[in-house]
Amino acid sequence: MKLKIALLGGDGIGPEVLAQSVKCLRAVEETFSHRFEYQEAPVGAIAMTSTGKPLPDETLELCRESNAILFGAIGALEYDNNPDAKVRPEQGLLKLRKELGLFASIRPIKTFPSLIGNSPLKKNIIANTDLVIFRELTGGIYFGRKTLSADGSVASDLCQYSEQEISRIAHLAFKAAKKRRKKLTLVDKANVLESSRLWRKTVTEIGKSYPEVEMQSLFIDNAAVQMMMDPRQFDIILTDNMFGDILSDQGSVIIGSTGLLPSASVGAENAMFEPFHGSYPQAKAKNIANPVASILSMAMMLQHFGLDEEANAVMVAVHKSFVKKVVTPDVLGSSKYGTDYVGDYISGNIV
Amino acid sequence: MKLKIALLGGDGIGPEVLAQSVKCLRAVEETFSHRFEYQEAPVGAIAMTSTGKPLPDETLELCRESNAILFGAIGALEYDNNPDAKVRPEQGLLKLRKELGLFASIRPIKTFPSLIGNSPLKKNIIANTDLVIFRELTGGIYFGRKTLSADGSVASDLCQYSEQEISRIAHLAFKAAKKRRKKLTLVDKANVLESSRLWRKTVTEIGKSYPEVEMQSLFIDNAAVQMMMDPRQFDIILTDNMFGDILSDQGSVIIGSTGLLPSASVGAENAMFEPFHGSYPQAKAKNIANPVASILSMAMMLQHFGLDEEANAVMVAVHKSFVKKVVTPDVLGSSKYGTDYVGDYISGNIV
Ligand SMILES: CC(C)[C@H](C(=O)O)[C@@H](O)C(=O)O
Ligand SMILES: CC(C)[C@H](C(=O)O)[C@@H](O)C(=O)O
Repeated sequence: MKLKIALLGGDGIGPEVLAQSVKCLRAVEETFSHRFEYQEAPVGAIAMTSTGKPLPDETLELCRESNAILFGAIGALEYDNNPDAKVRPEQGLLKLRKELGLFASIRPIKTFPSLIGNSPLKKNIIANTDLVIFRELTGGIYFGRKTLSADGSVASDLCQYSEQEISRIAHLAFKAAKKRRKKLTLVDKANVLESSRLWRKTVTEIGKSYPEVEMQSLFIDNAAVQMMMDPRQFDIILTDNMFGDILSDQGSVIIGSTGLLPSASVGAENAMFEPFHGSYPQAKAKNIANPVASILSMAMMLQHFGLDEEANAVMVAVHKSFVKKVVTPDVLGSSKYGTDYVGDYISGNIV
Repeated sequence: MKLKIALLGGDGIGPEVLAQSVKCLRAVEETFSHRFEYQEAPVGAIAMTSTGKPLPDETLELCRESNAILFGAIGALEYDNNPDAKVRPEQGLLKLRKELGLFASIRPIKTFPSLIGNSPLKKNIIANTDLVIFRELTGGIYFGRKTLSADGSVASDLCQYSEQEISRIAHLAFKAAKKRRKKLTLVDKANVLESSRLWRKTVTEIGKSYPEVEMQSLFIDNAAVQMMMDPRQFDIILTDNMFGDILSDQGSVIIGSTGLLPSASVGAENAMFEPFHGSYPQAKAKNIANPVASILSMAMMLQHFGLDEEANAVMVAVHKSFVKKVVTPDVLGSSKYGTDYVGDYISGNIV
């Protein structure tokens, strides 16, 4: 299979972790006799510095004509602490999601038996957790109209959803549930929000065409509790853009590190693969960032193209790094292995 | 001191737990020679059944002229699962908050040493957690304009904040921080939301007049992680209505039960005291609901009126119930004590 892959390292630790994924992809090419084509492009704060735009047109163009995008991370402290900035690195990521129509972010949360002690949660609570969050990614309060009054004293964001936006991701989520443990939990705030009530109505209706899937609904506040008290009750979680952002990061607590979790953002035409974690500028260029989330995102890309054997080889190599304790210090405090070394180890074990 | 207290039991387990608080208040009257005046009024689904309104005018009137309101809980399954309902029990609570101008919900989260094993989080993570969430309660997406298109296919909620709404709660929070460990964490999503950027700007500005308080900002997704990975880093958390709803419920995970945490909702003229937990209709009339959150909310009321000795006596009695394991089954699975019995025990120990 010949794939054209766009590489968008972005900001902070993004480029460093992405470099390890590419190393691993080269090992996959070698082992399985593939030939992938790579092309790098700037996005985020780094693109703003060179082009003034967080998503340069050429980058968007490249992404459109690629089979898949491997994304690093985005965001820089100078903008986080400047509420007046009119252009922000995050706009690059949001625009990319919107322009490519990547409406569903798929975020699996599955405990790694060899790392189970790393969670702040007790072992008996989290062992065998295996859930997938379907987060809507191109609607809601992220993309609704924003206003700031002329004198700067009143600001607003609109959270809007249409039936069609809800139904396309709902179908994906129900289909995934059908292939798994047949349970879908909708998370919303239907006791307060009109948009949540549209979610509840639409998803309940769609649920009728998936009679084999058991559907339940939880309010977001309760879901945030249940996620920590009893994560094993969940199979597929379906939720909107904002709630999905919070709930999926919170889900990383189950694993004990944000540095280990991958995600896929899919649309009708394109697909992008990115770690859960952010740009973590404090760790940049220190060779301490965990490359595993990026590498596992790359494995999700392989799965996406039906390269299951290849994806599996990557995951086996990652698990081996855990068992052999070849991990970055976020996973094991006493570890002296750096980003590079862990990347080398994993790629060297893709056989 | 003579206090006039409105009792709003509401739905589900609300009335049962509130009854235990009143029992304890009577014990406080006895022990400290006070004379409080009580008046009950309907709110929520139960008020809808009798009057058609979730907040009858008489109830609102009573609340206005009372010194304080003790609130039970609100919400009923028949409305949760009916996205078409035009009138909902929750509107009673929201209207009460808005009409009385209860703009700040104060939600302390402090571990109880005798119950520390109950948390799904490991002991070394949570021991000595002591934080207070200041949640804005009368603005944001809860109260912004809601729309539903004529054909029902598009719904929206507006999240709007003004500088003034932000600044009044920010001052409360900074003042509280000054009296505590002098650290304030603002939680927002300033990398995406215009309203969050107004929060960040306004709170940062106000922070300058509290130089002794160290201020930091976190994005909500990161805050949800930090709350579980290292809750001891927090002193005062300041946040908006929606994020505060999620974060405070999530905070109850630290304690291991939503049945133990109290809150105070305060405004310029009125104050209301209510447990974190909801109406939990599944437990109604089973005599299994935990009355402690309600009783501790009542203790916050006593503190609010400067009755510190009285509040302390209530808390000592509650702690005794923990140590003696006179608790409901949510706290200790093997416990056979009911709501009533625990209420009797605690009130009997207010000496
Ligand atoms: C960087 C930020 C805009 C982004 C989001 O909030 O969607 C990130 O937190 C994520 O989850 O992918
Ligand atoms: C019942 C509901 C409307 C309410 C809220 O979301 O504010 C509750 O969850 C709370 O936290 O007090």
